[in-house]
Amino acid sequence: MREHKPEKGWKSKVHEIIYEADTPIGKWFDLLLFLLIIISVLLVMLESVKWIDAKYHRTLFVLEWIVTVLFTIEYIARIVCIKKPFKYIFSFYGIIDFLSTIPLYLSYIFAGSQVLLAIRAFRLLRVFRILKLVRFLGEASQLRRALKASRAKITVFLFAVLILSVILGTLMYLVEGDEAGFTSIPTSIYWTIVTLTTVGYGDIAPITPQGQLIATIIMLVGYGVIAVPTGIVTVEFGRQGQGKPKQPDGNNHFVHVNTQSCPTCAKEGHRDDADFCYKCGGKL
Amino acid sequence: MREHKPEKGWKSKVHEIIYEADTPIGKWFDLLLFLLIIISVLLVMLESVKWIDAKYHRTLFVLEWIVTVLFTIEYIARIVCIKKPFKYIFSFYGIIDFLSTIPLYLSYIFAGSQVLLAIRAFRLLRVFRILKLVRFLGEASQLRRALKASRAKITVFLFAVLILSVILGTLMYLVEGDEAGFTSIPTSIYWTIVTLTTVGYGDIAPITPQGQLIATIIMLVGYGVIAVPTGIVTVEFGRQGQGKPKQPDGNNHFVHVNTQSCPTCAKEGHRDDADFCYKCGGKL
Amino acid sequence: MREHKPEKGWKSKVHEIIYEADTPIGKWFDLLLFLLIIISVLLVMLESVKWIDAKYHRTLFVLEWIVTVLFTIEYIARIVCIKKPFKYIFSFYGIIDFLSTIPLYLSYIFAGSQVLLAIRAFRLLRVFRILKLVRFLGEASQLRRALKASRAKITVFLFAVLILSVILGTLMYLVEGDEAGFTSIPTSIYWTIVTLTTVGYGDIAPITPQGQLIATIIMLVGYGVIAVPTGIVTVEFGRQGQGKPKQPDGNNHFVHVNTQSCPTCAKEGHRDDADFCYKCGGKL
Amino acid sequence: MREHKPEKGWKSKVHEIIYEADTPIGKWFDLLLFLLIIISVLLVMLESVKWIDAKYHRTLFVLEWIVTVLFTIEYIARIVCIKKPFKYIFSFYGIIDFLSTIPLYLSYIFAGSQVLLAIRAFRLLRVFRILKLVRFLGEASQLRRALKASRAKITVFLFAVLILSVILGTLMYLVEGDEAGFTSIPTSIYWTIVTLTTVGYGDIAPITPQGQLIATIIMLVGYGVIAVPTGIVTVEFGRQGQGKPKQPDGNNHFVHVNTQSCPTCAKEGHRDDADFCYKCGGKL
Repeated sequence: MREHKPEKGWKSKVHEIIYEADTPIGKWFDLLLFLLIIISVLLVMLESVKWIDAKYHRTLFVLEWIVTVLFTIEYIARIVCIKKPFKYIFSFYGIIDFLSTIPLYLSYIFAGSQVLLAIRAFRLLRVFRILKLVRFLGEASQLRRALKASRAKITVFLFAVLILSVILGTLMYLVEGDEAGFTSIPTSIYWTIVTLTTVGYGDIAPITPQGQLIATIIMLVGYGVIAVPTGIVTVEFGRQGQGKPKQPDGNNHFVHVNTQSCPTCAKEGHRDDADFCYKCGGKL
Repeated sequence: MREHKPEKGWKSKVHEIIYEADTPIGKWFDLLLFLLIIISVLLVMLESVKWIDAKYHRTLFVLEWIVTVLFTIEYIARIVCIKKPFKYIFSFYGIIDFLSTIPLYLSYIFAGSQVLLAIRAFRLLRVFRILKLVRFLGEASQLRRALKASRAKITVFLFAVLILSVILGTLMYLVEGDEAGFTSIPTSIYWTIVTLTTVGYGDIAPITPQGQLIATIIMLVGYGVIAVPTGIVTVEFGRQGQGKPKQPDGNNHFVHVNTQSCPTCAKEGHRDDADFCYKCGGKL
Repeated sequence: MREHKPEKGWKSKVHEIIYEADTPIGKWFDLLLFLLIIISVLLVMLESVKWIDAKYHRTLFVLEWIVTVLFTIEYIARIVCIKKPFKYIFSFYGIIDFLSTIPLYLSYIFAGSQVLLAIRAFRLLRVFRILKLVRFLGEASQLRRALKASRAKITVFLFAVLILSVILGTLMYLVEGDEAGFTSIPTSIYWTIVTLTTVGYGDIAPITPQGQLIATIIMLVGYGVIAVPTGIVTVEFGRQGQGKPKQPDGNNHFVHVNTQSCPTCAKEGHRDDADFCYKCGGKL
Repeated sequence: MREHKPEKGWKSKVHEIIYEADTPIGKWFDLLLFLLIIISVLLVMLESVKWIDAKYHRTLFVLEWIVTVLFTIEYIARIVCIKKPFKYIFSFYGIIDFLSTIPLYLSYIFAGSQVLLAIRAFRLLRVFRILKLVRFLGEASQLRRALKASRAKITVFLFAVLILSVILGTLMYLVEGDEAGFTSIPTSIYWTIVTLTTVGYGDIAPITPQGQLIATIIMLVGYGVIAVPTGIVTVEFGRQGQGKPKQPDGNNHFVHVNTQSCPTCAKEGHRDDADFCYKCGGKL
């Protein structure tokens, strides 16, 4: 019942718009931010294409400045309207927001710092936050839980694959020579992983009969090996699906959480009936 | 009991032949159309092979005209015998039928419009309609339902893969130079998806040690990532299979529908016991 | 209780040795045949390697003659000792046995007919027959049943993949030019299947931005597509495994069949308690 | 209650440190050995990179000697403190430890024997032993059991894939010529496996239309084929997961075993309540 709270300053209002998506304006802000991030990423992409940059350099430059100014306003607003600004500044998103905003300013001090613009791609992760409503309503959440549950098995598996790759890569380095592209053991290990994962670029490929024989064995092993993560994830999905309808208990995965974020520490994922932040204890 | 209806004009008869597959003539028409479509697609294919086109140009040209004339007759017949011709003309199949028929005529007005012939490949989709009896009898329908049920999960998954590709592609663009083929960020993203999906053309491949290291990580991530859609679809299949024999209820997937199509609006998939079209209400 | 039958001619004895694996001599014969087939295939392989053929031509030629003579003896023995020789001669294995034996003789009449030697690779299929005991005892049989049960679904799926490939291949032919290797529609379709199945040779690869965009979409579609057969087979395996221990009923998959083959028509897979051939009714 | 045993010589103490991980010193020893193995493998890798070897040859050489001396001490200690040294010397790990230690000494007798250093990669397998605590506590053990249970099926499957590859490879050798890279039947078989496993290097690729047609069929077959091991492993995983909580019986997979190893024969995996080695009967 936020609407009944009487004492709302402008900071609180801005906070509600920027950090939350419960109100219509908050939703519009999120949509605008979503579009702005997409545009900013597209700009970086287009600038990297040589002939586009040569032809439309001025246009791209102007658009780049508009995006940067809007990002700057957003960044300052985010800092101003939160109670504990340092929590935001040194959070993962805070750092990415800062690094996405700064490059154009820096380019006047250090030449070539526009390379940092590429960090903006990370802002796309915010899209997941913007679409958070979807996230908590099922699919993505189920995906995440299945991957989380099979994390331990996948780690053990990746570890085994790495050791196998080192052994097989070293073997291939000894069997094949420089001629075929196996110039060093690290390169050989790279080739082994390219083969085991069935990517198979072909930039390096065995040319001796014995090398091709070992490669064949690696591929057939890879056959069995690729089945393992699939098996793990599939079984985990099957369990998630079975577990959900049977046990709609009060564990936090199934409690409905809203998009409101704490005005003190910006933590999200509060229960609908929460009065205090579950993280810092600040009033919501 | 359509056979007992006395007042059948020739339009109604032609309609029954073209749009339906209940009568022997209707089945023969469908079979002929099926063969004609296959032949028309083969013709376009053969014309695209340079040495075949050079050698048998005249034969191919004559066959092309025969197919075009037959398609024209079919197209006109389809328009004439239906009660609401515009419904057909502006339907998906109507537009494809038109675009498959017109190119040869157009080539006398605009040079090079024979390129449109390739649109004929889309007519192959009609094969699914021709084989519609099969479709409603089990396998394909089960396939479609499983894919439909996992659509939401796969969308979220593809979205995550795209964002991951943008981030990793940008990273590779910065790490690798033009020399290895990473000439722009879009190209880098293309390469990342080629690698993540384990396609691995090898037209672009990292050559620096750090680039190869990141590529290795991308491939191992791809290992886990490729397991996700497989897991989703497998679990969904398992459910479809279990659900079917247990709940043979009256939902529309299991009601037997016939191949008859509405003489008014050409809509298909009517129940065996239907007397009126479920879409436009016209008498069947 | 074949041992108690008094009236056994030499033909019957030879038949028992060649066509069956119940007696010790029969097992030895099978083992020898197994080795001979492996050697004959290895010979064909080695002859195809240029430098080996150049160096050891005489040795290979002599060994080739020994294998051919032994195959000839086996082939004649198989015909002589069976009651209905034509059933064998025109059976799948009979034709392969004949084509595996004849090339060396033919090479004196027609030059180059040694190419037929390669047909010998098909004799490897006999290995499955030789190891038939294993086959009926579980694993392979379970594999076969799972694949058989999912045959219909996989056919529908392959059909859909083919139509999709024709449409996407035609599209890529129009978008990319000859320069990138998309020289004709069939070649484009070949490339599309190479991409959809994540093989990705890289002999043909898109070079225009729009081509790379479509390729990216094809790959992401392929992601979902590759999940389908895996899902089908996995679910089928799961069912096979569950079904087996629960219903050890008298269906023919679980009745123990022996390796004895009918002396009249060479049909195999008779029940242990069979007195007559289930195919031709001849006495066993 | 090993701590109460009074008669512990220095050999017994060293044995406890080297072969076991129950005591704090034993754990430190394992950690140090772990790091030393990683360093030794990294050294071999770096030496194989030409420019690093050219620049830092002296440093690498000194580090190589330090690692070799430490490995020598460890090897001698392992032999001295065990009661039956030959059991260790001729065990798998004993031979690898010896071959990992000897190359540098040998290089003064035989030039080029430093190649043997690569054998050190196999010492990485010891990492699994060092992390053995983890192994018996769940994930890896479950992975191993699932793979073990599906071993028979996978063997039959690989056998079928190999025969299929020989037949298809021979076919491709006949269809495609030397020009496309199909220079011999073994090379063709290599290509077939590269294609069936969807690795697809592209170093060899069909160029004739009929070759591309067969390749397309091989790829579509590979589609179904790759689903088989995935199906097997997934079903097996599903069973492992279901079986575990239901039957927590006394079979040896679930009895807790510790990291203690027999002082007589170095066998590991004893039950917590064991007093005698389950292998040689020696007192623990």
